[in-house]
Amino acid sequence: MTDTMKHIVLASRPDGAPTAANFRLEESAVPTPGDGEVLVRVHYMSLDPYMRGRMDDAKSYAAPVPIGGTMEGGAVGEVIASNSPDFKPGDFAFGMFGWATHGVQPAKMLRKVDPAQAPITTSLGVLGMPGFTGWQGLMEYGRPKAGETLVVAAATGPVGSMVGQIAKAHGLRVVGIAGGADKCATAKDHFGFDECLDHRAYPDAKSLSAALKEACPKGIDIYFENVGGKVLEAVIPLMNPFGRIPICGMIAWYNAGGLGANAAEQALTAPKLWRTILVNFLSVNGFIISNHWANFPNFLKEVAPKVADGSIAVQEDITEGLENAPQAFMDLLTGGNNGKAIVKVI
Amino acid sequence: MTDTMKHIVLASRPDGAPTAANFRLEESAVPTPGDGEVLVRVHYMSLDPYMRGRMDDAKSYAAPVPIGGTMEGGAVGEVIASNSPDFKPGDFAFGMFGWATHGVQPAKMLRKVDPAQAPITTSLGVLGMPGFTGWQGLMEYGRPKAGETLVVAAATGPVGSMVGQIAKAHGLRVVGIAGGADKCATAKDHFGFDECLDHRAYPDAKSLSAALKEACPKGIDIYFENVGGKVLEAVIPLMNPFGRIPICGMIAWYNAGGLGANAAEQALTAPKLWRTILVNFLSVNGFIISNHWANFPNFLKEVAPKVADGSIAVQEDITEGLENAPQAFMDLLTGGNNGKAIVKVI
Repeated sequence: MTDTMKHIVLASRPDGAPTAANFRLEESAVPTPGDGEVLVRVHYMSLDPYMRGRMDDAKSYAAPVPIGGTMEGGAVGEVIASNSPDFKPGDFAFGMFGWATHGVQPAKMLRKVDPAQAPITTSLGVLGMPGFTGWQGLMEYGRPKAGETLVVAAATGPVGSMVGQIAKAHGLRVVGIAGGADKCATAKDHFGFDECLDHRAYPDAKSLSAALKEACPKGIDIYFENVGGKVLEAVIPLMNPFGRIPICGMIAWYNAGGLGANAAEQALTAPKLWRTILVNFLSVNGFIISNHWANFPNFLKEVAPKVADGSIAVQEDITEGLENAPQAFMDLLTGGNNGKAIVKVI
Repeated sequence: MTDTMKHIVLASRPDGAPTAANFRLEESAVPTPGDGEVLVRVHYMSLDPYMRGRMDDAKSYAAPVPIGGTMEGGAVGEVIASNSPDFKPGDFAFGMFGWATHGVQPAKMLRKVDPAQAPITTSLGVLGMPGFTGWQGLMEYGRPKAGETLVVAAATGPVGSMVGQIAKAHGLRVVGIAGGADKCATAKDHFGFDECLDHRAYPDAKSLSAALKEACPKGIDIYFENVGGKVLEAVIPLMNPFGRIPICGMIAWYNAGGLGANAAEQALTAPKLWRTILVNFLSVNGFIISNHWANFPNFLKEVAPKVADGSIAVQEDITEGLENAPQAFMDLLTGGNNGKAIVKVI
């Protein structure tokens, strides 16, 4: 047990895309768990697009990380001290320990992770928040029906790959969008998508839309929205009547400096978007998974066995060392990862 | 029984707001009903914002009116000849007779109207398509809960006044938006709205939004969207988490020449709109009432008695003479009417 721990703090708020200067590695004393609390030595931490939002001080569903505060995030590690009867040293637990080597949390804020059931990294991805986001959003707001067509971007990411695989299991035609030929091959060969388009091969929304139209000859019934930007603009003209659009993120716009500074919004205006919702009778639902945790046990019950038997495939992209988390995060925001982005901390 | 009838045809497609030159009054022979068909002498025809959409040839949920074709629309009148056992001369019927003095329709496309239950004009408004639109959209997609706050524009129109009155009956705080002090007085005194803002008193979305914020101290839970434009932009920052936005129209944008030519869309970008849906977990549903006719009997069963006993108030704005329909329609699109816009044809 070390006496000091490392963590990465928000040094300054980014103006557009984050840079290394927005982060700072600091050391501090390992905290002592109070009554009912648990001290965890982090093994793996998660990198997720939502963290970009926490770096801004815009009004959102969650408070921003303060300047000088530890970057937020989920992580999994081993309990090294516990003042709760629910955890003992040697247990593994998932919690919001942030970008850090150690963390203290109240026991009731932790989820026990069984390393015998699946590798503990899956608690950050396919069997954690991202996988649950894909499953819950698709089932509650996507309402998949056999024979329909679904489109999802970031197809090899932990949300998109879950959405695609669950939709396939329900009998839908599933078309992914991803950045690069490698990721498209992964989407088809590893995750079983029917088609996957490399958005980098299309210079603008119009050409991407034309390619999507070919890949979706019967139109699009469900667009699971996790990127926004060019993909949204390409999808909008192809939505079928009574289509559904669950929205869990818009990574393409997170760096857009007030959500108005990029090319996509020039062509896709608010009136055009609104009109498409009206004339196609679309159902559009924004959601954040933290409002749905009550359903998490049902997710695990359905999906954990499928991960164990291999019918849900997993792909992880693991970076070594906490000090490399900022670069890995910047890569994630520009699509440089291939699979669930994880940092190995120990 | 005359041998010739009058009708108003689409002379040319409008570029922006319609003008008198886009319409032409024509005469033709009164058609003869075929097998199973009914000939009706129209007494009153309806003017509705959706008709603006039919004048364009943009992709929509309905085919455009062809150049030279009779303007579409609902109307109510007296059966003067019938080849169907379901109707006899002297009956009153509602049907899509268009902007015309006479019309033939298959009996199965007509709805019998009982002049003893309510004035036949109500079949065009409060007990017809617009009233049903307000009731159905609010109940299915608005999901009103006592104690919440609802905002609806065109508050004295047949859709808005129904939405407001039904929401009041469900225990919501109801804030209307209308054009002019007279309409606002009507909304409060005649229809029972808690507040009504005159959008003409606010030069831009920002000032309207500030006034709305005062009128809605607990934020907005339901925005029933029938106008778009400045009102939408003013409402968006005030939406509460888990808010609902049923969309049945966007009259402010119908004249916007490709939905991109007015000021409102400069400030309200697609990313900003999309982000609000995400971060507030909004549920946005476009709908057109023609997909919901199966529920019309339930609407009549609930609402017709309320109209009969006066607990649902009615306001109609009746223009005399078919030849004045184009001007009345242009007035409707700029808010010149006060109440359900109707043309007395006979």
